[in-house]
Amino acid sequence: MINGMRNIKLTIEYDGTCYNGWQSQENGRAIQDEIENAIFKLTGEKIRVTGASRTDAGVHACGQVCNFFTSSSIPADKFSFALNTLLPGDIVIKKSEEVSGDFHARFSAKGKKYRYVIYNSPHPSALLRSRSWHVFYKLDIEAMKEAATYLIGTHDFTCFMAQGSNVKSTVRTIWEMSIEKEKEIVQIEVSGNGFLYNMVRIIVGTLIEIGAGKIRPEQIDDIMKKCDRKLAGRTAPPQGLYLVEVYY
Amino acid sequence: MINGMRNIKLTIEYDGTCYNGWQSQENGRAIQDEIENAIFKLTGEKIRVTGASRTDAGVHACGQVCNFFTSSSIPADKFSFALNTLLPGDIVIKKSEEVSGDFHARFSAKGKKYRYVIYNSPHPSALLRSRSWHVFYKLDIEAMKEAATYLIGTHDFTCFMAQGSNVKSTVRTIWEMSIEKEKEIVQIEVSGNGFLYNMVRIIVGTLIEIGAGKIRPEQIDDIMKKCDRKLAGRTAPPQGLYLVEVYY
Repeated sequence: MINGMRNIKLTIEYDGTCYNGWQSQENGRAIQDEIENAIFKLTGEKIRVTGASRTDAGVHACGQVCNFFTSSSIPADKFSFALNTLLPGDIVIKKSEEVSGDFHARFSAKGKKYRYVIYNSPHPSALLRSRSWHVFYKLDIEAMKEAATYLIGTHDFTCFMAQGSNVKSTVRTIWEMSIEKEKEIVQIEVSGNGFLYNMVRIIVGTLIEIGAGKIRPEQIDDIMKKCDRKLAGRTAPPQGLYLVEVYY
Repeated sequence: MINGMRNIKLTIEYDGTCYNGWQSQENGRAIQDEIENAIFKLTGEKIRVTGASRTDAGVHACGQVCNFFTSSSIPADKFSFALNTLLPGDIVIKKSEEVSGDFHARFSAKGKKYRYVIYNSPHPSALLRSRSWHVFYKLDIEAMKEAATYLIGTHDFTCFMAQGSNVKSTVRTIWEMSIEKEKEIVQIEVSGNGFLYNMVRIIVGTLIEIGAGKIRPEQIDDIMKKCDRKLAGRTAPPQGLYLVEVYY
């Protein structure tokens, strides 16, 4: 409670296809706006929600987190059901709960887990077209797995950060990484204490160049040490990326 | 070859969300029309394709099959790549091949396999909203599996046929059926020598009533013997259904 207001944490799944990303902006629909509008319809309160991650246009989430303060007397666990009746079908509140007043979706986060889905087949997929990146050439999954071992740990990830970003430190720790292929689907999962802007998508773009034989796995170490974005691969497209979980 | 024309078989994946079903009709976009338009753009030929199954609006396919006759000299295996550049992203030709002149996508079919996907959770899914049926109450999967054992085999399936259908025989054989639950996803797969109109969706609707405890598994036998549509469950919605494979 802060000034008699409760702090509510929401866990959110969304299909990012039709949105201009999480964060409100002048142009385009933002997921944040839709949630704030639904809260306004429900409680009459014009509030701002704080999101854990500013996912880009087209990026999906299974477990985005946001929080907001409310004077409403609606039971915390009922917010999810009530908001889901007011939200479009491509945004779903999976869980709502009351948290302590000092909980902040972004600053309290200890880490995050992302998944990237690649559809690896000569032909594209109709059903996964806005849920994956279509890579039509053969990938050497073992080489990609070897490259991943160099990424795990604490490193300066400048080479995997979109240019023009402005952050205090470019050092992050990747806790775990897995690359699994089943039929045409390659899933890359990565968790860590924080991610620079576009870091997961640039890592995936680089792993794909390794899978295609354009970069050798052991070169990753050298690329990281040189801290030069131009040495890493392209930025993988947004529609293959999922924010899976935020750790607190 | 028939009159110098080759018979081409296409295997097709589609997301049925934005279509009024497979078959051309006066109102709405049909998947068949899109494929015929793409063939016209490619070959200049105004032809009709013959589909194996007339999937309903909203129903998806991983392995629909159709065939058509062409005078074009394009190599058979290149049709898929060429047509995919002309088709919208929610329809993809997975394979194209030349078949003998007497091959008919519908009449040559020996059987089909369908999958039905249920999202079983108190909250809906944003990412699977047009790919599954959201069932929010708890399901007894073991009871549903027991009911499936009564369905396998050769039966008069009149009770699982949409009313107003007109077919010579209502006897069909179900070869195999499986029901698997993993986290929130329940997948029902069924293969057989043929399916009456809406048969899979009415079977799924009935299995859900069994899972909810409204019908006992052993009642299925009695429902089938009475040949009365009203005794079976509701018709499950189209967006959970996938035509997986057509057997020849």
